[in-house]
Amino acid sequence: MPIRVTIWNEFRHEKKKEAVAKIYPKGMHEAIASYLREASDLSIKTATLDEPEHGLTQAIVDQSDVMVWWGHVAHGEVQDAIVDRVHKRVISGMGLVVLHSGHFSKIFKKLMGTSCDLKWREEENEREILWVTRPGHPIVKDINDHFILPREEMYGEYFDIPEPECTFLISSFGGGEVFRSGCTWTRGAGRIAYFRPGHETFPTYHDKNVLKVIENAIRWAAPTPGPVAQMFGNRKLGWVG
Amino acid sequence: MPIRVTIWNEFRHEKKKEAVAKIYPKGMHEAIASYLREASDLSIKTATLDEPEHGLTQAIVDQSDVMVWWGHVAHGEVQDAIVDRVHKRVISGMGLVVLHSGHFSKIFKKLMGTSCDLKWREEENEREILWVTRPGHPIVKDINDHFILPREEMYGEYFDIPEPECTFLISSFGGGEVFRSGCTWTRGAGRIAYFRPGHETFPTYHDKNVLKVIENAIRWAAPTPGPVAQMFGNRKLGWVG
Amino acid sequence: MPIRVTIWNEFRHEKKKEAVAKIYPKGMHEAIASYLREASDLSIKTATLDEPEHGLTQAIVDQSDVMVWWGHVAHGEVQDAIVDRVHKRVISGMGLVVLHSGHFSKIFKKLMGTSCDLKWREEENEREILWVTRPGHPIVKDINDHFILPREEMYGEYFDIPEPECTFLISSFGGGEVFRSGCTWTRGAGRIAYFRPGHETFPTYHDKNVLKVIENAIRWAAPTPGPVAQMFGNRKLGWVG
Amino acid sequence: MPIRVTIWNEFRHEKKKEAVAKIYPKGMHEAIASYLREASDLSIKTATLDEPEHGLTQAIVDQSDVMVWWGHVAHGEVQDAIVDRVHKRVISGMGLVVLHSGHFSKIFKKLMGTSCDLKWREEENEREILWVTRPGHPIVKDINDHFILPREEMYGEYFDIPEPECTFLISSFGGGEVFRSGCTWTRGAGRIAYFRPGHETFPTYHDKNVLKVIENAIRWAAPTPGPVAQMFGNRKLGWVG
Repeated sequence: MPIRVTIWNEFRHEKKKEAVAKIYPKGMHEAIASYLREASDLSIKTATLDEPEHGLTQAIVDQSDVMVWWGHVAHGEVQDAIVDRVHKRVISGMGLVVLHSGHFSKIFKKLMGTSCDLKWREEENEREILWVTRPGHPIVKDINDHFILPREEMYGEYFDIPEPECTFLISSFGGGEVFRSGCTWTRGAGRIAYFRPGHETFPTYHDKNVLKVIENAIRWAAPTPGPVAQMFGNRKLGWVG
Repeated sequence: MPIRVTIWNEFRHEKKKEAVAKIYPKGMHEAIASYLREASDLSIKTATLDEPEHGLTQAIVDQSDVMVWWGHVAHGEVQDAIVDRVHKRVISGMGLVVLHSGHFSKIFKKLMGTSCDLKWREEENEREILWVTRPGHPIVKDINDHFILPREEMYGEYFDIPEPECTFLISSFGGGEVFRSGCTWTRGAGRIAYFRPGHETFPTYHDKNVLKVIENAIRWAAPTPGPVAQMFGNRKLGWVG
Repeated sequence: MPIRVTIWNEFRHEKKKEAVAKIYPKGMHEAIASYLREASDLSIKTATLDEPEHGLTQAIVDQSDVMVWWGHVAHGEVQDAIVDRVHKRVISGMGLVVLHSGHFSKIFKKLMGTSCDLKWREEENEREILWVTRPGHPIVKDINDHFILPREEMYGEYFDIPEPECTFLISSFGGGEVFRSGCTWTRGAGRIAYFRPGHETFPTYHDKNVLKVIENAIRWAAPTPGPVAQMFGNRKLGWVG
Repeated sequence: MPIRVTIWNEFRHEKKKEAVAKIYPKGMHEAIASYLREASDLSIKTATLDEPEHGLTQAIVDQSDVMVWWGHVAHGEVQDAIVDRVHKRVISGMGLVVLHSGHFSKIFKKLMGTSCDLKWREEENEREILWVTRPGHPIVKDINDHFILPREEMYGEYFDIPEPECTFLISSFGGGEVFRSGCTWTRGAGRIAYFRPGHETFPTYHDKNVLKVIENAIRWAAPTPGPVAQMFGNRKLGWVG
């Protein structure tokens, strides 16, 4: 059975800024989706903010094994009820891959418990080098010891996240800043990955290394098949022995 | 300068149930506070749900180095604005020691990002043995390799928390259940400890080992003196090099 | 391509004690191996202490994706050169599943960096209940929220191990002790699991839950296919930018 | 009672290379020691490789609360018996602060369980920027959000260490590399910090930020006073309940 993936995108920049539309004529979600559709073990859907229920009806969420999340200017427009729905699904096992400015999304902040704040610099067209810090991890399968994005937006530490369970990529930028660009956590039965690159004015989601990491992250975050044993509800217990 | 501690208690059971009032005539917070007031390096305040702003005005929160939290039946009555205030203060360095049924408090769930759910059993009166699983940690200073509470309420795994940074106590119960009874996490600059014992119908907060762990946890969770360097706000950066 | 598994057993008790031989006539390794051979994605070999090079020639080690390790009375007889060979292979990606008294093996202590000491009690015929503390983890696939071994040897905390990256099982024993019975770590590119049960005088390796956890652990610990990028050697670097 | 600190230095470069001797006429250990002696809560001793028992007699080790370790060309000359002595003392609570090329010392590798390998570049006189990634941690007390070393040797990822319990500093170098320059772990009751800077041909141990981090690390790593309860020995247990 394929892994059922829902790629969620705010999809605003692409409709409003010509420069962005040029790079992603059908939206960033479609750039990612069209790459992933080549993989026979993945079944790809997309959803965007301006669809009813943001494209995340209960049925869609229930049928998602992994969700990919990109947002930026409209985090506040995402309804709390939808965030709670996604959160509940993560706790019960759905994987979540949060991209770039998604660090400030409601769902990521709710899962992390921190401010998710960071340093940044106005688009400067900077070189980013991403270094692998956990070789052998499934998320960096087929990735060399580093890869370079010639132009990206700088994100710098301190990135206010809980100590990651695994830091698999650390970036340096032209200005000498560093950033934990690839991190993982577990929340309930759900696996969460944050992956930094993806500023909308650069062709980052056409980069083969970036796409490969997203693909790997989806497979890594997919839930273990089968029931999650007796985890839910405020359970009153009898005697087991 | 002493560590400024605010002990927050829901303070409802003590007012409504005679059995509880007998054990804690002035409330559980006062049982804990009166013990802690013996320590010359601690400055103790208390606050309770039914005070204005739950006793947690901005000034009180700003002047707290560590907060201790007990709640149970009235988690839902704690105002979201107050929860946000406490959360923000934890991120900027205040320590938080969450006790027993506080596992389901809004503040703990907000910091953890999980459901914080667990198993439990009505029948009271069970023996709990708490085993030290991180000897040498400041939170278990002067605690033997284990201690016993003759009567407590059972809490059982799975406890839906993020993988702790440190698990310092694990309990077993009369029924054969186990529970991670002492755990720590960091959120922003704030240190958080969860400590399980403290069912309101037992004299747990008169137990010397329990009080000692709370005292140790407060010292461990106290913020590092001095400013927390340039962490806050969504910071636009110039060039450092 | 199947996962190539080497099950290593000290294989002394079975040859010397009639009671053990009765339970495991061909050795504990064969009890485990015969179960695993049913899985079409696993290719099973065994190796024992008294074979040349303990059955762990360079070729065998190089062709192992995952190793399972049981030892007890003869840890000291395992040659350091063989331990170093296995250690090097773990760092470069081989998974390692350490069972029961293997906690005191040279290879486990070398990977952990601690004493790996624990409390124990002379065979007492005690009930062990193992509780799942990380539902959704691949290692507990198809395991209920707990399972019971009617007779096992007690191991108790403090277990001197580094804070696990994941604790997936915690046991309680008849005497009220607790133990972190399922733990994982990463060392280099290698994934390591410790799984507690398996005292030689009990039929533990005929228990279907125990066998299932071992099977799951092997799949979880199997290396990510493909090269581990530029990790090894003391590497002098040129300029990447 | 002051914290008893032993600063261990290989002390070979300073005796053989004039360039190094110019920067550290009495050795790197004395540069660090003379700074630390200003702190009234620290009691400072030094020890070097060529002293009898490398200056680490049983008495000296037993009376050390924290040890600082610098080594480079002569790791192999440190006797295994002395390494075991120091290791045993760390497990029972002594703190250890490992500096720079000490990453390849026998004691650090024994505690980590990994190869501790890394990338490096021939002395290139590069700018290193160290960014704080855990504000509020006692080790970065009084350190700004970053500090700069104008000339240092490059160390690059992948650094083969177990996932740190806390990463408090990450560096970038002139060449665009990154490195986890400040990390902590626990082994037994002992706290361990690794701190990267300190190539012998640069005046790094005269830098006030570097010295401050070492000072902070010592206080953080100091053992909790009092006995470490019943942790040691292979303990046969009776019944506790």
